[in-house]
Amino acid sequence: MYQYDFPYRVRYADVDQMGYMYYGHYARLFEIGRVEALRNLGLRYRDFEENGIIMPVYENKSRYLSPAKYDELLTIRVKLEKLPSARIVFHYDIISENGDILNKGETTLVFVKMENNKLVPCPSNMIEALRPYFA
Amino acid sequence: MYQYDFPYRVRYADVDQMGYMYYGHYARLFEIGRVEALRNLGLRYRDFEENGIIMPVYENKSRYLSPAKYDELLTIRVKLEKLPSARIVFHYDIISENGDILNKGETTLVFVKMENNKLVPCPSNMIEALRPYFA
Amino acid sequence: MYQYDFPYRVRYADVDQMGYMYYGHYARLFEIGRVEALRNLGLRYRDFEENGIIMPVYENKSRYLSPAKYDELLTIRVKLEKLPSARIVFHYDIISENGDILNKGETTLVFVKMENNKLVPCPSNMIEALRPYFA
Amino acid sequence: MYQYDFPYRVRYADVDQMGYMYYGHYARLFEIGRVEALRNLGLRYRDFEENGIIMPVYENKSRYLSPAKYDELLTIRVKLEKLPSARIVFHYDIISENGDILNKGETTLVFVKMENNKLVPCPSNMIEALRPYFA
Repeated sequence: MYQYDFPYRVRYADVDQMGYMYYGHYARLFEIGRVEALRNLGLRYRDFEENGIIMPVYENKSRYLSPAKYDELLTIRVKLEKLPSARIVFHYDIISENGDILNKGETTLVFVKMENNKLVPCPSNMIEALRPYFA
Repeated sequence: MYQYDFPYRVRYADVDQMGYMYYGHYARLFEIGRVEALRNLGLRYRDFEENGIIMPVYENKSRYLSPAKYDELLTIRVKLEKLPSARIVFHYDIISENGDILNKGETTLVFVKMENNKLVPCPSNMIEALRPYFA
Repeated sequence: MYQYDFPYRVRYADVDQMGYMYYGHYARLFEIGRVEALRNLGLRYRDFEENGIIMPVYENKSRYLSPAKYDELLTIRVKLEKLPSARIVFHYDIISENGDILNKGETTLVFVKMENNKLVPCPSNMIEALRPYFA
Repeated sequence: MYQYDFPYRVRYADVDQMGYMYYGHYARLFEIGRVEALRNLGLRYRDFEENGIIMPVYENKSRYLSPAKYDELLTIRVKLEKLPSARIVFHYDIISENGDILNKGETTLVFVKMENNKLVPCPSNMIEALRPYFA
């Protein structure tokens, strides 16, 4: 398994009139988490796009256990539980300052070649960067 | 079953550099859909809040079948497949101008009394407004 | 002068923990207003982009007179006070249900040819559509 | 003068189909900048709110000199050019990785006592924290 933690400060822009982070903003945290988890492996999502591969989201799920509040410094914990093939599945725990899991998420993305808009398998450099974590 | 359609125009603010509506913005469309579906029954979400009942989201799921593009006039189709009790589950189809389903979503919300932060059952006026659709 | 009104319902996604529409979201309302003001003249912003002209924002200003609240049905009033040339300047009043001006805004956009990234004058079909209002 | 720099990575959620950060998202960067500039002085905006003082935005301006692109690591430079009194004025430069100023902004906020919704002067602890920079 590959796991990576990245901090996120809840902003005024994120919080609704219940004083909770708006439910739709977790998808942004998930994006930040998976991009930074890949960067930590030396992989930049923008390089994939510049090489003609985009990664559209196929499925996104989120379970809201407890609200995130304004100005909290959250931890976005990203987990890859298996090597990607046609799809890549990211799991996330959004964790409060005192260690509680506030939200559990899961995003499935696919790989698409821009020039013909066709599905392709996970690029080999992504698999090679991840392989050591799945030995 | 209760079903309701509401239009949504995709804005520049919604679209990412793939030219697709950003995956995190569907949650906003779902919010618009369920609030307008309730309004169509004579129920305003703000009245529930003013009466001390909030409806936090417990779970949200979205499956992305095809991208929504800038300036498209989408239809948010909202479906309630059963009467709410402790929870209320909204299903959505996001439909393109030419009738394709672009996205399928599902949101589960609970009912919380603000004064003590306790879970409560679905308010009776919501159940009464919905009952005719489940006869 | 050309003036156009378009409705906007304030959403939960828009409102912060003061119970006010977040100050950054007015820019989205301005976008909606100016795109719909042009559509009302038979001009679609997406057609300009498809013809190779983009309209980046050069300047944006907003004065917040009174807060917009959740679920209010606002009016976005858009005003063009003179014919565009190298620039186009939109003025906006954001008006509450009971007629108060909540926000006054102003956006200046320029016209850029995508193929060479150069500034160009306002397209002639936009000027022709607007000319009757400035006779 | 008091000046403070804080980093901001441009996210997919921020970028539109021109490949530019959407013009409405700069307000969020300005919020991040001013909150972190205050935190660096030992002042937390949330503490002001918990003590009954909110700081609504009165005016916001932004000039867009050059676009911010996806995944760029920007610098939010925040400047306070004079001691606050009834109002506080933040100036910002949004700076690219190679040192270009992409955007210049300015936000004026006021101080409001929540219990009676009246304007009040800048809290004394904020003035004291800032005074050394204006000697």
